[in-house]
Amino acid sequence: MAILSALATEVFIPIAGIIGIVFAVVQWVLVSKVKLSPAAAAAGGSKNGGYGDYLIEEEEGLNDHNVVVKCAEIQNAISEGATSFLFTEYQYVGIFMSIFAVVIFLFLGSVEGFSTKSQPCTYSKDKMCKPALFTALFSTVSFLLGAITSLVSGFLGMKIATYANARTTLEARKGVGKAFITAFRSGAVMGFLLASSGLVVLYITINVFKLYYGEDWEGLFESITGYGLGGSSMALFGRVGGGIYTKAADVGADLVGKVERNIPEDDPRNPAVIADNVGDNVGDIAGMGSDLFGSYAESSCAALVVASISSFGINHDFTGMCYPLLVSSVGIIVCLITTLFATDFFEVKAVNEIEPALKKQLVISTALMTVGIALISWLALPAKFTIFNFGTQKEVSNWGLFFCVAIGLWAGLIIGFVTEYYTSNAYSPVQDVADSCRTGAATNVIFGLALGYKSVIIPIFAIALSIYVSFSIAAMYGIAVAALGMLSTIATGLAIDAYGPISDNAGAALVSLALFGAFVSRAGVQVVDVLSPKVFIGLIVGAMLPYWFSAMTMKSVGSAALKMVEEVRRQFNTIPGLMEGTAKPDYATCVKISTDASIKEMIPPGALVMLTPLIVGTLFGVETLSGVLAGALVSGVQIAISASNTGGAWDNAKKYIEAGASEHARTLGPKGSDCHKAAVIGDTIGDPLKDTSGPSLNILIKLMAVESLVFAPFFATHGGLLFKLF
Amino acid sequence: MAILSALATEVFIPIAGIIGIVFAVVQWVLVSKVKLSPAAAAAGGSKNGGYGDYLIEEEEGLNDHNVVVKCAEIQNAISEGATSFLFTEYQYVGIFMSIFAVVIFLFLGSVEGFSTKSQPCTYSKDKMCKPALFTALFSTVSFLLGAITSLVSGFLGMKIATYANARTTLEARKGVGKAFITAFRSGAVMGFLLASSGLVVLYITINVFKLYYGEDWEGLFESITGYGLGGSSMALFGRVGGGIYTKAADVGADLVGKVERNIPEDDPRNPAVIADNVGDNVGDIAGMGSDLFGSYAESSCAALVVASISSFGINHDFTGMCYPLLVSSVGIIVCLITTLFATDFFEVKAVNEIEPALKKQLVISTALMTVGIALISWLALPAKFTIFNFGTQKEVSNWGLFFCVAIGLWAGLIIGFVTEYYTSNAYSPVQDVADSCRTGAATNVIFGLALGYKSVIIPIFAIALSIYVSFSIAAMYGIAVAALGMLSTIATGLAIDAYGPISDNAGAALVSLALFGAFVSRAGVQVVDVLSPKVFIGLIVGAMLPYWFSAMTMKSVGSAALKMVEEVRRQFNTIPGLMEGTAKPDYATCVKISTDASIKEMIPPGALVMLTPLIVGTLFGVETLSGVLAGALVSGVQIAISASNTGGAWDNAKKYIEAGASEHARTLGPKGSDCHKAAVIGDTIGDPLKDTSGPSLNILIKLMAVESLVFAPFFATHGGLLFKLF
Repeated sequence: MAILSALATEVFIPIAGIIGIVFAVVQWVLVSKVKLSPAAAAAGGSKNGGYGDYLIEEEEGLNDHNVVVKCAEIQNAISEGATSFLFTEYQYVGIFMSIFAVVIFLFLGSVEGFSTKSQPCTYSKDKMCKPALFTALFSTVSFLLGAITSLVSGFLGMKIATYANARTTLEARKGVGKAFITAFRSGAVMGFLLASSGLVVLYITINVFKLYYGEDWEGLFESITGYGLGGSSMALFGRVGGGIYTKAADVGADLVGKVERNIPEDDPRNPAVIADNVGDNVGDIAGMGSDLFGSYAESSCAALVVASISSFGINHDFTGMCYPLLVSSVGIIVCLITTLFATDFFEVKAVNEIEPALKKQLVISTALMTVGIALISWLALPAKFTIFNFGTQKEVSNWGLFFCVAIGLWAGLIIGFVTEYYTSNAYSPVQDVADSCRTGAATNVIFGLALGYKSVIIPIFAIALSIYVSFSIAAMYGIAVAALGMLSTIATGLAIDAYGPISDNAGAALVSLALFGAFVSRAGVQVVDVLSPKVFIGLIVGAMLPYWFSAMTMKSVGSAALKMVEEVRRQFNTIPGLMEGTAKPDYATCVKISTDASIKEMIPPGALVMLTPLIVGTLFGVETLSGVLAGALVSGVQIAISASNTGGAWDNAKKYIEAGASEHARTLGPKGSDCHKAAVIGDTIGDPLKDTSGPSLNILIKLMAVESLVFAPFFATHGGLLFKLF
Repeated sequence: MAILSALATEVFIPIAGIIGIVFAVVQWVLVSKVKLSPAAAAAGGSKNGGYGDYLIEEEEGLNDHNVVVKCAEIQNAISEGATSFLFTEYQYVGIFMSIFAVVIFLFLGSVEGFSTKSQPCTYSKDKMCKPALFTALFSTVSFLLGAITSLVSGFLGMKIATYANARTTLEARKGVGKAFITAFRSGAVMGFLLASSGLVVLYITINVFKLYYGEDWEGLFESITGYGLGGSSMALFGRVGGGIYTKAADVGADLVGKVERNIPEDDPRNPAVIADNVGDNVGDIAGMGSDLFGSYAESSCAALVVASISSFGINHDFTGMCYPLLVSSVGIIVCLITTLFATDFFEVKAVNEIEPALKKQLVISTALMTVGIALISWLALPAKFTIFNFGTQKEVSNWGLFFCVAIGLWAGLIIGFVTEYYTSNAYSPVQDVADSCRTGAATNVIFGLALGYKSVIIPIFAIALSIYVSFSIAAMYGIAVAALGMLSTIATGLAIDAYGPISDNAGAALVSLALFGAFVSRAGVQVVDVLSPKVFIGLIVGAMLPYWFSAMTMKSVGSAALKMVEEVRRQFNTIPGLMEGTAKPDYATCVKISTDASIKEMIPPGALVMLTPLIVGTLFGVETLSGVLAGALVSGVQIAISASNTGGAWDNAKKYIEAGASEHARTLGPKGSDCHKAAVIGDTIGDPLKDTSGPSLNILIKLMAVESLVFAPFFATHGGLLFKLF
């Protein structure tokens, strides 16, 4: 048995969660010390010691009341817009989720014909398990819990971001160091709140459900998977809806503002500017918050399901069973220490120190986490145990499992660095893309697409290696904990944001594969044979789904952006004094265009993802569904990585030209030059790729897998109608 | 036994081939009647009766000697440039192919340790088969034969195209009907020559090899697969090299000529114009010729290999064995009749009649072919026979097999129509893309990408359905003959070109799957289990390969285009009188840039494709290689289709605006308007997508499969070194 007792585990997990939440609150308090009232700002301004580098130009005096008031005004407008949009979005999604909850209950309840009698367990035939009807009920409850936690995470993230936006701006006037700390702290609030609340809610749910399930851990953790599905479904709508919202506004604002009118980004004269900024908060922040929470919930669920049918579950070894949660708990503590390095131990004094500081954060957290995992693997795991492996049991040592988590963790770091290499303008790939703007937008696009394709190579090898090693050591459980390892530094990743979506791209593959493995185990499939036509057609159709999904989301962004452009043009043409800054634009119409477009357009792609597993599983059965999941996974992860990196590279190529920080960059600029215009076109094309399609694809592959897992008992019993008929 | 005797088969196949060749020669003679000497042109000009619609404006008199002389001059320049490039290309490729031939011989020879003794057969253990050493030798010979046939096909195609170019131009002055017939006839020359010579060479090779192999049909058809590999390898270099050549010149010429200097496409003042036109002939024509020949050779080989280990092969039923060749023979006859409809039975009188006429060709050939297949299935196949199905034998009826071929054939037609819907400017998708140019290049690109992604959906469902049905009926043999069905109207497809690459996109999937099935059978793999980590890492890495490959080819085009742009700009800036047309540009330097770039840049992507199966098979073994093939197939086919269609849509959106044929189109134009400029940017980005990456990807997935098949005996014996070591 493990060194750590069951009681110690029961205490350690919630304490780690609470520490995380407390830490988030402390950071929040520190951020809120920056006052958005003129008097306090003046006081704050006087402490401007030791920071030489300024982020924004001092057009107006540092203590100018007007600036502070204006900041507060804009923040309110954005915050109100974002809140109002999210409430509208949640209403529509709420209806969808309620219907889906009923579907879950009915489908899963039908597995044993809505019988209320206990049945022999699926894996330990000699024991009795709770009836499917109650597992259906608990799955539905955990589904709703996951959805609500995800919703709250996204909403709080948005609130924190809008709260911090104006404060960071004000601090930026005092120097880069102050601004960096404020921005970093607000990122940390979100990161820690998300990681900790995810852990705590999951932990409480397990303990409450256990009151009913008692010794039936199979049923217990089967019903817990609903939590992952709920979190992930919510994330899908958040990402897609928010993504369409923000990019419609962004593309629309840029096309008229920057390209036609030659006014700067985020200029208040631009009628789409409020919609654009609201979009940043509802799409990038709320969407990403929900998304990462979903990943975290899913990878925990995948690991827990496999563990429940391994020796941990069969022998009722609670500490071993909770190993996935313990890894996450250690992750929170490690990230907490790491954050102190950024905010308290070191000081950032210049803009060019920010990137190295963030990179240092990643390395520190990864190194500390490696020690943490080693410790927890030694404490929480028996020296030897067995893991379920598609019908057989495989023996694993605690050090083997440590290695699985560690390889996921380090693969994540490598992928993060590769991504940075391909998307940061400090390195040659982005500089080459910027250089290609000399010959116009077409070469810029060709180079950008090629860069995105190329950036897939190393991450895929890293993922493949992680999969091979962790599977060889501990079958699907190894992959599940490798995914947890990759996501264990989630709090730091979220705090520095730039890396958040990246490790999520790679993490998605591992999480999805782990869920896929859990699904296959649960559905009783022994072999997914590519040579079987049932599987192969699933594979090729599955590989097509990311294209179908991307076509929908990109077309949505494009259409909404067209409307936005027309509206912005109309306002510039018909409102006298708008260009001169003497008249106020009609922000509300632009906000409405984005809102309407995103609410209307998020339904079809959402339905595609949510309905595919149901339709395929019910009509074609688990084999074809396995093919679809594998196909969507191997095809989707490539498109997701390349779309994100292509978009990121175009964005930074544009910034590279705008900043003009090197000899080379200055030959391409300045703003408004032909090169810069070509770069802006690339950036605009990249917007839907990197902020709508790319990140949504991660959710697509994970969500289809977790949904299949939740419905696995149904598909195994009633699935494959079409093949049964013919 | 079949109704058709072995002797009748022996006679019918070569006769069909010879009829095809004779028909091609007749068409050639008809084309060559258009004289490129002034006197004859004058005579031809007088026969201008009944054709009201003119394709080119009559700036100069119809009988003007200068026009004819100028046409002849330009044709000579292009023809010489193309010939000289192809010879350079063939030298480099020749070296590569020679080395690869040695590799084939050594690897396959080593299977039985270079023993010269006969061995028990792989599938019929009671019989004796020829030693592996000789099969290695014959495989090498058939590899070289395939390469040479492919090379000759491509070269002749180029010669025919350049020969016909100027003649079509001259005929165009007399009216659209004449021009259409000349263009169509020259397409037919290439189509029939390719399909027929492919058939005849393959047929002769089989008969010659049979002199040695006698009753050992296993060895005979195993060695014949080298023919497919040779044809396909040559096609890869042709497509990649030619694709880089043509698109570097095209992109370079357009960026300076159309965008900066505002001169028309193909204006002789543009220094890159000759390189551009040479490129069209070496890339689009020679490359496509080699490519389609490769597909044809591969699908025949895949079908023959599976047949040889089915009852046809075991019972030595020669007619049944030759069924794949008989289908192709019938295809030639059917296409011949179909061509007469275009050239002799109907008359095209206006430009807008061309597309319906070509569409009619497709429908007629498909309908006639269906009858033809039914007939040949009845005549050539026994009522019942058994097909090898991964270790077991499956019973199939002749009507079942007819159905397999027919479903491939009709799926090809449907895919052709879907492609037309998404890429022709007569329908709303392309018109929407054109409309999005109103808001600039960025929305044009976003809409174009979304269109390409969307256009994948129906073709993939059509492919999936074909796979499922044909596999259910006749296992991998069913898929192989479905691929043959899709390619059986190749001669018509090539003649009308537009559809050629399309059915090839879809055909590639079936051909590749059939080859994959043959490989798996030959390597003795019973199951390719996605749940095995060996297979899964292959799957995900395989799905990445098309991205790696596309990154290479697109970057190559981009870099070469940058050099081209700089050279063209330099000439416009430094050669006085160039813009005014009084000075001649330096065409040669531009030709040299394209030549150098394509020769240098075709090696890395070529090596990637050629070496991957060898490395994976040798180090990781047949299971991982199976994963790689399946991954590359399901991921590659999507990118290939979407890249081709996106590029096609941008091209036609631009043409839609230029033509201004509708009210809507006129609001977007005219040439030189902002909308048109945005459309040109899209078109330029589409160039490498539709003419370099897209088509090359088809070859990638087929080539890796056929290479694996050829090396299957080696991998089965010596493969998987890395796993054996650890």
